[in-house]
Amino acid sequence: MSTESALLPALDLTGTFAFGLNGALTAVRAARLDVVGVLALGMITALGGGVIRDVLIGAIPPATFQDWRYFVLAAGGALIAFALSRRLDRLGMPITVLDAVGLSVFSVIGASKALSFGLQIGPALALGVITGVGGGTIRDTLVRQLPSVLVSDLYAIPALVAAAITVGTVETGVYGLPAALGAAAVCFVIRMLGVYFGLQAPRPPRTGNDHDSPDS
Amino acid sequence: MSTESALLPALDLTGTFAFGLNGALTAVRAARLDVVGVLALGMITALGGGVIRDVLIGAIPPATFQDWRYFVLAAGGALIAFALSRRLDRLGMPITVLDAVGLSVFSVIGASKALSFGLQIGPALALGVITGVGGGTIRDTLVRQLPSVLVSDLYAIPALVAAAITVGTVETGVYGLPAALGAAAVCFVIRMLGVYFGLQAPRPPRTGNDHDSPDS
Amino acid sequence: MSTESALLPALDLTGTFAFGLNGALTAVRAARLDVVGVLALGMITALGGGVIRDVLIGAIPPATFQDWRYFVLAAGGALIAFALSRRLDRLGMPITVLDAVGLSVFSVIGASKALSFGLQIGPALALGVITGVGGGTIRDTLVRQLPSVLVSDLYAIPALVAAAITVGTVETGVYGLPAALGAAAVCFVIRMLGVYFGLQAPRPPRTGNDHDSPDS
Repeated sequence: MSTESALLPALDLTGTFAFGLNGALTAVRAARLDVVGVLALGMITALGGGVIRDVLIGAIPPATFQDWRYFVLAAGGALIAFALSRRLDRLGMPITVLDAVGLSVFSVIGASKALSFGLQIGPALALGVITGVGGGTIRDTLVRQLPSVLVSDLYAIPALVAAAITVGTVETGVYGLPAALGAAAVCFVIRMLGVYFGLQAPRPPRTGNDHDSPDS
Repeated sequence: MSTESALLPALDLTGTFAFGLNGALTAVRAARLDVVGVLALGMITALGGGVIRDVLIGAIPPATFQDWRYFVLAAGGALIAFALSRRLDRLGMPITVLDAVGLSVFSVIGASKALSFGLQIGPALALGVITGVGGGTIRDTLVRQLPSVLVSDLYAIPALVAAAITVGTVETGVYGLPAALGAAAVCFVIRMLGVYFGLQAPRPPRTGNDHDSPDS
Repeated sequence: MSTESALLPALDLTGTFAFGLNGALTAVRAARLDVVGVLALGMITALGGGVIRDVLIGAIPPATFQDWRYFVLAAGGALIAFALSRRLDRLGMPITVLDAVGLSVFSVIGASKALSFGLQIGPALALGVITGVGGGTIRDTLVRQLPSVLVSDLYAIPALVAAAITVGTVETGVYGLPAALGAAAVCFVIRMLGVYFGLQAPRPPRTGNDHDSPDS
């Protein structure tokens, strides 16, 4: 358990840093925000998923507000990304890779933290996915993009796989650094394969609905 | 009280199923999402209002995370809607009717649960409305529509009426299955009459402001 | 301390009223909503920041749901703004000024309330900013504008300054009505100077990224 105790924050901080970089690059690309806007979007992306998780499991105040390292890594990642963005010809690939890192790590941490707060297996899976996709969903909503969780090739599914591996290894008593890294790696690989090959889940057919006009 | 105890989850689950169907059909129509996106939007719509309610009244973890039936009905509704969507020529009317069902039921449940957690009458009314409109507001925001609560004919008002009937019957000791169903039915009828007749609350006049350009 | 105890609600209610007016005027201008939509957006803007703050510090149910004056001032402000909007040739300046008032007051209250709930200095600063910008961010998201906190000249920075003055005066034992009003005034002045002179934080250069196309 002591290994797990030390592991949780380290992985969590890694995901925080990745999402800080990611959110900031998104801010540069999607909306050409100034440095304060870049910092704000980076921090919201990095800290949003964990805050939602902690509110839902009753870990109040959220870990983010009790450990200054979260703020430093989120803000530091955002500022580094802001500085680097002028050197990058293309922001798309770094944004995608960093998002996949945050998604993978946060799904593992979210599921294991939910279990450690006494939630059952099903809710822990849900909390893993919510933690993984939460920050990015807020990020996309704020810059007025359709959220990745709704539209991206294999986004929620790898998060669910990572959460399932985490729950499985915790329940069988083999959870630890290797298991957590393995679960995150599986999520990362599935996500990146989905991006690379443009894999999509089935879509509804176009017939029939095309006559339908929005009534809102 | 034992009747009420059994009633609350049953009505809550009915609203969850209706909103799961609704959110999924919205996903098909508004954004042509794949099956994972449809499932995600259905579940967010179905579970969002109740989660917000439970966070605000301190019912942590939310009921959604303690009772697997919420997840099953939300996900099942979303998948059924995905499968059925190819058979529907028009999605507008099912979306509107299902949304009205969820709105009605959740407004009643939200108000009564708030009272059972010790909130006063005013806050219980507010919680009823928030529970009723919460999931749909998140749904609309994620697919970048103006939320129904802001723009639709008679949307928040029937929710408030249902919450008021609920609070009134709880306070006078006659709350139970008939009262809850009656309150929900009144909300549903007002909402559907509003849709059918295109009823609108007063709007601001157009004079004067047309010279005004956004400054943000 | 008794002064502070009486002061907190009074300032909080002032900010609530200002944001109620602001949100309602935004609803009139941005989306020509009907009176219910105007009321809803006014109340969400006025009450959103405080509700987020209270959820994050564990003050459940939020103060908003325990003190009817918040609802009355938020709703009253929204209705007054709706009535006045037909008399205003231009809504931009009142919207900006009222938003600055709410931002200033809520940043001070958020920081001091966080400290009174036992949070450390860093988290209290964050909570101040979150309380100040929270309602407006929800407001902008719902009417599909880029949030002020991401795009506006000097928005998060004055909020942070107000929170810092608040934390500094609380920690040195000189917090009270004059300190709170002073902190809010400094925030208000910085914000309005930023608007007046169009001050901007540094933006990323345009070179390099222009070749980049969104991949989402």
